[in-house]
Amino acid sequence: MTSPADIVGKFITLEGGEGAGKSTQARRLAAALEERGLRVVLTREPGGSEGAEAVRELLMQGDERRWGPRAEALLFAAARADHVEKLIRPALKDGAWVICDRFIDSTRAYQGASGIEDAAILALHAFGSKALLPDRTILLTLPPERGVARATLRDGERADRFIARDAAFHGRVAACFDHIAEHEPERVRRVDADYGAERVTEAILTELADLLP
Amino acid sequence: MTSPADIVGKFITLEGGEGAGKSTQARRLAAALEERGLRVVLTREPGGSEGAEAVRELLMQGDERRWGPRAEALLFAAARADHVEKLIRPALKDGAWVICDRFIDSTRAYQGASGIEDAAILALHAFGSKALLPDRTILLTLPPERGVARATLRDGERADRFIARDAAFHGRVAACFDHIAEHEPERVRRVDADYGAERVTEAILTELADLLP
Repeated sequence: MTSPADIVGKFITLEGGEGAGKSTQARRLAAALEERGLRVVLTREPGGSEGAEAVRELLMQGDERRWGPRAEALLFAAARADHVEKLIRPALKDGAWVICDRFIDSTRAYQGASGIEDAAILALHAFGSKALLPDRTILLTLPPERGVARATLRDGERADRFIARDAAFHGRVAACFDHIAEHEPERVRRVDADYGAERVTEAILTELADLLP
Repeated sequence: MTSPADIVGKFITLEGGEGAGKSTQARRLAAALEERGLRVVLTREPGGSEGAEAVRELLMQGDERRWGPRAEALLFAAARADHVEKLIRPALKDGAWVICDRFIDSTRAYQGASGIEDAAILALHAFGSKALLPDRTILLTLPPERGVARATLRDGERADRFIARDAAFHGRVAACFDHIAEHEPERVRRVDADYGAERVTEAILTELADLLP
């Protein structure tokens, strides 16, 4: 959506709850776009730049109650400001396609599920990152209880502060993502993640078809 | 200024540029108030709570250009939100006097000197810390070149990212502090730091006289 004159690449984000396959699909999508001759930068949030990765450590580790929801939202906005300034905008300006595993919609969904108003989160994004929005966002959908079970199995004792939260929280996260998708249908496209990886990648490419050269 | 019904202690901050003697005076002030029978919590920013101290490490170390001014302002706001929620508000509610070495005015002065608008910094403070302001702020004044020389002598190679900045930056910081003091004369009182420690403490106590029991 936000494509100022100095941005020439495309910015694609993958979003969704825990265990929906975002990281796997981000890698598969990067490979598929590279096969088509596009230059791709694959990154993730929180993190993606040196400073943002240091903030990620603070955000993901420790007790569930380590940060209140407002401190948490500010830390996500700080990490994102660094990531956008140091990596995403330069890559887009340089003509690359940037694929990012989680971005602003994850903050809207997770901190929204913790009680922070959407307008406040968008105001922090405007302050920190000049309100950069993806050209397209793929929302991978999966019933939250199934996703959390997958993610817990995957991460075991390394499970982070967010995976560890209760079913009601993950239900609110899913509802927030749905709300965003309903209100921004041009930018945000739902893809059912409850199929094999190959079929999901095909569905993602279909949702990007109008952007591809 | 901000004293909601549930806040019963007094909140005093010490502010000023590098090397003005804030930490020394914060300790001396704490001792003087304890002698008068007041319960005192002495703290500092950035830091002051477990989470905020972890953010402090990110903010103070590394290259001068490690963080852009917007990421920096968000990190300060995140650390402050944690400090206010976990330490300052509970201590005030419990009836203690809280003395804090640097607070929101330092962010207004230092990030203001880096080009961030004052209104934006205050908006982050409203979001993170419900706009908590001190009952009184002591601004210790000293010509910035003298203060920076003192701080550099004191810290040597441990000098942080802010001390290391150039004279023009420290001049802008001093101008921002002056601007705040001019516009909020009831809350912010200037004390000339260019005297012996004992005399400076006496001057600070004079500026707090109307708040003391």
